[in-house]
Amino acid sequence: MVRKADVFRQKAGIDVRTGHRAERIDIGEQCVSGSTLDGEAFTLPFDRLLIATGADPIVPERPGFDLPGVVVVKTLDDARAIKERIASHPVKKALILGMGYIAMEMAEALRLRGVQVAMAKPRPRLLPWLAEDLVKRVRQELETNQVKIHTGFSIDRIESRGDGLVAWEPSGEAIEADLVVVAIGVASNSELAESAGLKLGPSESIAVDRQMLTSDSRIYAAGDCADAFHVVTGERVWIPLALRANRSGWAVADHLCGRPVSLQGVAGTSVFKVFDLEVARTGLSKEEAASAGFDPATVTIQASSRAHSMPGASPIQVHMVGDRRSGRLLGAQMVGKEGAAHRINAPAVALHTGMTVDQFSETDLAYAPPFGPTWDPLLVGANQLIKAMK
Amino acid sequence: MVRKADVFRQKAGIDVRTGHRAERIDIGEQCVSGSTLDGEAFTLPFDRLLIATGADPIVPERPGFDLPGVVVVKTLDDARAIKERIASHPVKKALILGMGYIAMEMAEALRLRGVQVAMAKPRPRLLPWLAEDLVKRVRQELETNQVKIHTGFSIDRIESRGDGLVAWEPSGEAIEADLVVVAIGVASNSELAESAGLKLGPSESIAVDRQMLTSDSRIYAAGDCADAFHVVTGERVWIPLALRANRSGWAVADHLCGRPVSLQGVAGTSVFKVFDLEVARTGLSKEEAASAGFDPATVTIQASSRAHSMPGASPIQVHMVGDRRSGRLLGAQMVGKEGAAHRINAPAVALHTGMTVDQFSETDLAYAPPFGPTWDPLLVGANQLIKAMK
Repeated sequence: MVRKADVFRQKAGIDVRTGHRAERIDIGEQCVSGSTLDGEAFTLPFDRLLIATGADPIVPERPGFDLPGVVVVKTLDDARAIKERIASHPVKKALILGMGYIAMEMAEALRLRGVQVAMAKPRPRLLPWLAEDLVKRVRQELETNQVKIHTGFSIDRIESRGDGLVAWEPSGEAIEADLVVVAIGVASNSELAESAGLKLGPSESIAVDRQMLTSDSRIYAAGDCADAFHVVTGERVWIPLALRANRSGWAVADHLCGRPVSLQGVAGTSVFKVFDLEVARTGLSKEEAASAGFDPATVTIQASSRAHSMPGASPIQVHMVGDRRSGRLLGAQMVGKEGAAHRINAPAVALHTGMTVDQFSETDLAYAPPFGPTWDPLLVGANQLIKAMK
Repeated sequence: MVRKADVFRQKAGIDVRTGHRAERIDIGEQCVSGSTLDGEAFTLPFDRLLIATGADPIVPERPGFDLPGVVVVKTLDDARAIKERIASHPVKKALILGMGYIAMEMAEALRLRGVQVAMAKPRPRLLPWLAEDLVKRVRQELETNQVKIHTGFSIDRIESRGDGLVAWEPSGEAIEADLVVVAIGVASNSELAESAGLKLGPSESIAVDRQMLTSDSRIYAAGDCADAFHVVTGERVWIPLALRANRSGWAVADHLCGRPVSLQGVAGTSVFKVFDLEVARTGLSKEEAASAGFDPATVTIQASSRAHSMPGASPIQVHMVGDRRSGRLLGAQMVGKEGAAHRINAPAVALHTGMTVDQFSETDLAYAPPFGPTWDPLLVGANQLIKAMK
């Protein structure tokens, strides 16, 4: 997403101060102070303040993570750095640290350029929030595409070797690579808010209410730096994703303009593509449900992406989570070559309304042979989950 | 869907009497009587009776509709008859009567076999339940694929001419064809129920309650012969589609086995594919909403099937209907080359819960660049509909 600052200045009449680093929020004086790139100090007063400092990729403070060829994936400049590295070096092998969706998307992008790809993460599970059978399918897809997966592999230093790099595990194992992509997660840029005394939420994000107001009623926070309420648990969560970030900005504008705002929150819906596979989730995993105090029952079913008579059908795995006590639907996950990405929106809407699994199982979902079996895979899952919840 | 009767006899121990025509239900005596293919009379007693007589294609009682080469599309035999006609005749031109989804699917199937296709219907609008801009796209798709569309064209007789057929309009216009597919709609097979004195619902379907019981508490009706409640209007409707038909059969089994059943009903969700286009709907059109007593506002937006940076993106048209008085979402329709079929399930679930457009606009739908823009086309539609409803 690239937009020039002048567009905001000229089209919207916004006084955009690029090259200005905000270093301090003085709540009592209602002003923000800092310094410009030229080293000049500035102070800007406010009636209302919006903190939209975003989130940045986490880079471990370990030896060699600042070497050329060790990159993160956030800005256009990051992408250019990766392309430049590939153009200026013979990049035959890439090591991706992390196995989230950014890591997966980079694995695919690099394989498509003919680069050998290895992925490493310290923890033992590939996608810890995804049900086991669904993880298997993702692992298979990665392996089919010659991506090497090193779980339980912690990198504690990176060294140069000739034109390339070597990433070292504490035990002495090493992975050679010409490019190291650090995609181990992001952290909220909340230091400014924290030092101003504003309350923080989960993962050091900035705590906001349903109007996106921080613990100070003159100060909003929105975008990836702010937390949200989860519609299933009612608890604060920090799930930095584009729709929620974008929507929270709109909500601030609405609230400032006097329109009533009370955001429902997030259902934890997300989707990514990895090679030919769509991986989608909404709501809680079994582990998340249990730690939120629910009594979760789960089911994993396999269905077909099209009616059996249709050519081109492929398997879809559906995992669903329900609460034995209340009967509520708590979450759904899907993996398939087609029909997973958009299907996940149906249970997402159900989570917003607190639907029971019974109620969901009766919903009138679309059917035509090219798009699924008569009973949508989600309905097959719900029907099985009803039994598992007894 | 082909299943041999012996499977039911041997695997499930069901006394399946094929070749037995039920001709009369005697409610007082609790028995069904009729005759076999050999002309023998039979009488079968019942404690509980299930009427599952389905629906049959409507064939006008007009001259020539019984000629060889004039076919309907319901059973495997119908399909065989069409294939046989194509094998035994030089079928260069086909005329399809009707413009519903069966008609559309046949148009595609015949074009793929290289047959010239014309479609005709008496009424002026191609898909009267679909919003105007969306109909345009469907018409374009048909025309791009060389399908000729004759709206306002009523066929009052069909004649043989040599090896082929001629379909005549009352004014004297005619369409020549080697095959005529009659796909003008279906009618519930409710004669047996009606003559037993059971109450009928819309379009002469059999009226049932939420337990699939007819007006007699010993007799169920399920499948395409029975009506249903619409979750938006609460009124009886007859929408003969596979999921609802199948689900109502399960509900009868559940109810007979003592499991509580109270079906929510249908949202009127349907989807079809026509060439490269997905056409999907759920809920009410503007006209249906108005005649159900709502004060409908509508909006039609165009969005992209993928994020703008992604190759392969194509336009998606979304039409949404909301009620000005209650704020409720009443319906949604979508047309696109990809991403319409499964997306429709999100508003379908919303309709089951009586969500307002405001609430729907805040739902946490999935986003990733290969699958849509940050704000899903449905959310863009909902945001615009909120404004249109004021």
